[in-house]
Amino acid sequence: MAPPAAIETFPETDTTSFTVPDRLTIQHVAKRRAASGKLVAGVAAVADIDAFKGRTQHLHKGKAKRWDHRLSTEARTRKGNSLKNAAAYLKTPGLISLGGGLPSAEYFPFEELSIKVPDNGRYSEEDVRKRGKVLTAGKHDQADGKSHFDIATSFQYGQGHGAAQFLRWLIEHTEIVHDPPYQDWSCTMSIGSTSATDMAFRMFCKPGDWVLTEQFTFPTMIETVRPMGVRVAGVPMDEYGLCPRQLDDLLSNWDEKERAGPKPFLMYIVPTGQNPTGATQSAQRRREVYAVAQKHDLYILEDEPYYFLQMQPYTGPNAPDVPPPASHEEFIKSLVPSFLSMDVDGRVMRFDSFSKVIAPGSRVGWITASEQICERYRNHSDTSTQGPSGISQLVLFKLLEEHWGHAGYLDWLIHMRMEYTARRNTILDACERYLPKDIVSWVPPMAGMFHWLEIDYTKHPRYPDMSMDDIEDELFLKNVDHGTLLMKGSWFCAEADTEKSKMFFRATYAAARFDQIEEAIRRFGAAVRESFGLEAYTNGTH
Amino acid sequence: MAPPAAIETFPETDTTSFTVPDRLTIQHVAKRRAASGKLVAGVAAVADIDAFKGRTQHLHKGKAKRWDHRLSTEARTRKGNSLKNAAAYLKTPGLISLGGGLPSAEYFPFEELSIKVPDNGRYSEEDVRKRGKVLTAGKHDQADGKSHFDIATSFQYGQGHGAAQFLRWLIEHTEIVHDPPYQDWSCTMSIGSTSATDMAFRMFCKPGDWVLTEQFTFPTMIETVRPMGVRVAGVPMDEYGLCPRQLDDLLSNWDEKERAGPKPFLMYIVPTGQNPTGATQSAQRRREVYAVAQKHDLYILEDEPYYFLQMQPYTGPNAPDVPPPASHEEFIKSLVPSFLSMDVDGRVMRFDSFSKVIAPGSRVGWITASEQICERYRNHSDTSTQGPSGISQLVLFKLLEEHWGHAGYLDWLIHMRMEYTARRNTILDACERYLPKDIVSWVPPMAGMFHWLEIDYTKHPRYPDMSMDDIEDELFLKNVDHGTLLMKGSWFCAEADTEKSKMFFRATYAAARFDQIEEAIRRFGAAVRESFGLEAYTNGTH
Repeated sequence: MAPPAAIETFPETDTTSFTVPDRLTIQHVAKRRAASGKLVAGVAAVADIDAFKGRTQHLHKGKAKRWDHRLSTEARTRKGNSLKNAAAYLKTPGLISLGGGLPSAEYFPFEELSIKVPDNGRYSEEDVRKRGKVLTAGKHDQADGKSHFDIATSFQYGQGHGAAQFLRWLIEHTEIVHDPPYQDWSCTMSIGSTSATDMAFRMFCKPGDWVLTEQFTFPTMIETVRPMGVRVAGVPMDEYGLCPRQLDDLLSNWDEKERAGPKPFLMYIVPTGQNPTGATQSAQRRREVYAVAQKHDLYILEDEPYYFLQMQPYTGPNAPDVPPPASHEEFIKSLVPSFLSMDVDGRVMRFDSFSKVIAPGSRVGWITASEQICERYRNHSDTSTQGPSGISQLVLFKLLEEHWGHAGYLDWLIHMRMEYTARRNTILDACERYLPKDIVSWVPPMAGMFHWLEIDYTKHPRYPDMSMDDIEDELFLKNVDHGTLLMKGSWFCAEADTEKSKMFFRATYAAARFDQIEEAIRRFGAAVRESFGLEAYTNGTH
Repeated sequence: MAPPAAIETFPETDTTSFTVPDRLTIQHVAKRRAASGKLVAGVAAVADIDAFKGRTQHLHKGKAKRWDHRLSTEARTRKGNSLKNAAAYLKTPGLISLGGGLPSAEYFPFEELSIKVPDNGRYSEEDVRKRGKVLTAGKHDQADGKSHFDIATSFQYGQGHGAAQFLRWLIEHTEIVHDPPYQDWSCTMSIGSTSATDMAFRMFCKPGDWVLTEQFTFPTMIETVRPMGVRVAGVPMDEYGLCPRQLDDLLSNWDEKERAGPKPFLMYIVPTGQNPTGATQSAQRRREVYAVAQKHDLYILEDEPYYFLQMQPYTGPNAPDVPPPASHEEFIKSLVPSFLSMDVDGRVMRFDSFSKVIAPGSRVGWITASEQICERYRNHSDTSTQGPSGISQLVLFKLLEEHWGHAGYLDWLIHMRMEYTARRNTILDACERYLPKDIVSWVPPMAGMFHWLEIDYTKHPRYPDMSMDDIEDELFLKNVDHGTLLMKGSWFCAEADTEKSKMFFRATYAAARFDQIEEAIRRFGAAVRESFGLEAYTNGTH
């Protein structure tokens, strides 16, 4: 069966024409590590980020732009944690420190921490229960020579950038996947991308500023920044996400008087599997958006929790599945290039997250940006979050650094891709089957957790006497009556008070039990039919 | 040997005259729990805090003051996380949710998490290694009926206030120890007190505001708030900490023009084992400070990481030690009452922390304040930190709720008291022995990690030709030369640019190896003698 007209598949050229000369591979990282010797990082050690990147690896690249003129008073005046400066003296041989106010690790009431995790590419819960591998961290593994990260260090105070031991892994992973095209890029851990959003906006904005985002966006972002006095301007989208021409128009024609505020210079976007629309910007689209950002000197916050939920192409119901990537190289090449990977100017702060691919409760993520920006971020961390939980860092370190390594993590990500592809295909097949297509239409998502369904409310029997908002509300409640829950599209409008012309519902195929997705969509179809006065669905075979 | 004149021991009456009518005991909590039935709290469940407190337990108390007039624009306009509102529909029986964008727990690559912890009151590292108890959390322990907290829930997204399962324990602990004397008190988790400081100041302050603190204070606090445009006014201290009369004077005579800012209404204090002075406010002192706060309508941020590092009385070198508290009740009664425990108005936000008594790396703490303030704090958490790491919460839950319980935790805290008492006694005995008392003087600390040593710089052979700052610097570097590190007192001045008249060094007895504390002080004594041109110390027996 041919896909309906509304479906446009991702142009093949966008994901495969992107070639990466001299891209760092897992093998390169392994060689670099072997050459750099053993990592020794004690309590609250400052990470030697240049060593993790390879000191000469990036010297042929240009340097990042400076952003001094864009930084808020808060970010410019922040000095970081002065007491940590005294740590310089701790290197004095034989010194006994009565300086830092740290508790002694002998009073941490934990001798071991163990986790049971997947082994040998067997990922099902049953497999892990029966044949999983137990990874154990001891309290003094570093002193005992058993590991270069342990309880005594990870459960202690740390640096705002996170523990050097795990930060190295994150930097290498970032280089393998994105290879930022400027010299002085850096990474620092976040405690998750919601906090990174909070911190980034405080770094750049003052009350009265406007910032740019997709016209439909993640409401928590707006709820995070609006109390700072920051206003959000939505940029129109199509099925490939934010439209560069409309972004250019908006900025070129910005009327400071009408908007009661200066032209925006900060843009928050979710380029891959966008929340709520599920839209993924193609490589070409990203290059166009980046060019507009250069023209208007925008700084870009690239929030990418769904980056590794890029799925296999959707072939339609009953068509054979596309086989998984045959190698790590093929997998990485199949990913749409990130803004970070094309950021020659250093105008991107990328937020990465483990929430969608490992576990949200870890509250560990990281940002990648120029050293100037990372340094400001670290200083803020040192005087607020103090970096992510050391317990979380230890758990992730045991899994990602010591057990899976970079290769094993890519295997896991390929597994996740195949699982999400199966879920996405299930919901699309169910939509094909149960939804009245003259009322509900959609574009198959290529990435992420969300399926964005447009409702032709003009077909509602009581339209236009009944308002669009009321129809949306009726359908929302009708869904609940029928035993399913979808989110109202209006909840995601960047500019809630502007008039809407289209109606959407957001469905996620990530959270429900796999075997209930079809039934949920059947119920949604029944709710739509009832709301719109259509006959109930009957299976053609009955 | 009699203690030197500078030493004033804590008046006996201060800590024992405080009686607590109807204080909630561990037994009461156990009964209340038994009556309230099994706690069922699924993914990101909103905590029923009134149930945790006991719905009728506090009705006889007055209600907290409202603080609307003090809240910042940011705090007043913050709305929290709107998508969580849709969660109300999740209670519909049989509903299949395609709503919340959560990953399925089947994709968390963890089947078990175990920790090895002290058992049966045996706390040494060797005991735990050999005879510790292993606590294990399974992925689906809640569904399997094995526990009311598991990996599937704790590793998932949660609420800004933290998981209900562990928040209950924190609320009960707070009630057992502090029993706040107003009705609508509440608790919510923080990700540590540095972040709580950051969030609290954003809640109350605007640029140009002055806030009050002790004249010597924790520099990170200043580094946290100064970038917000907030200025810090230091209140004079004596050996019992902040002086209420001087606080009253400062506020009564506040000159808005001279200070270029309105009279302060926010005060940040560390009443117990203050950093850096080690001073502990007596019960009487606290009542006087609270009365001044009432007179001037101050809001108090009570930062209390060292509260449970209150030690046994110091009896001097060679005197017998005071036996440990004989019961939990005696232990709790021996604690100086907190500001929270005398806060009839609801004008205190207390910061509690596990950093000094369990492990700093957990990045889990909690605040206690009126429901109005906690609600604002939770809303900020929901749009920034998202609450503490779920992995940390699970680890603490297994230890504190399921293994130790309230009684076991108090046993641990008594153990910590005795350990810190021994460390404190060691450093004081060494000071008695090795320091030239005509130059170095001190008050024995009653709580915390810090020993605050006053230097009579006027005795320096080059004073006054050599400036006070230069003498401080010389002694700091001389210490390093002699192989010990103490912090300069000037690093801790609340108002760095005001003229100083006294010189201090801060030594911590918390971090060094127990058997090296004496040697570190011997080296410090040698550095002082050298710097001040005295003869080297010789043991009288030689």
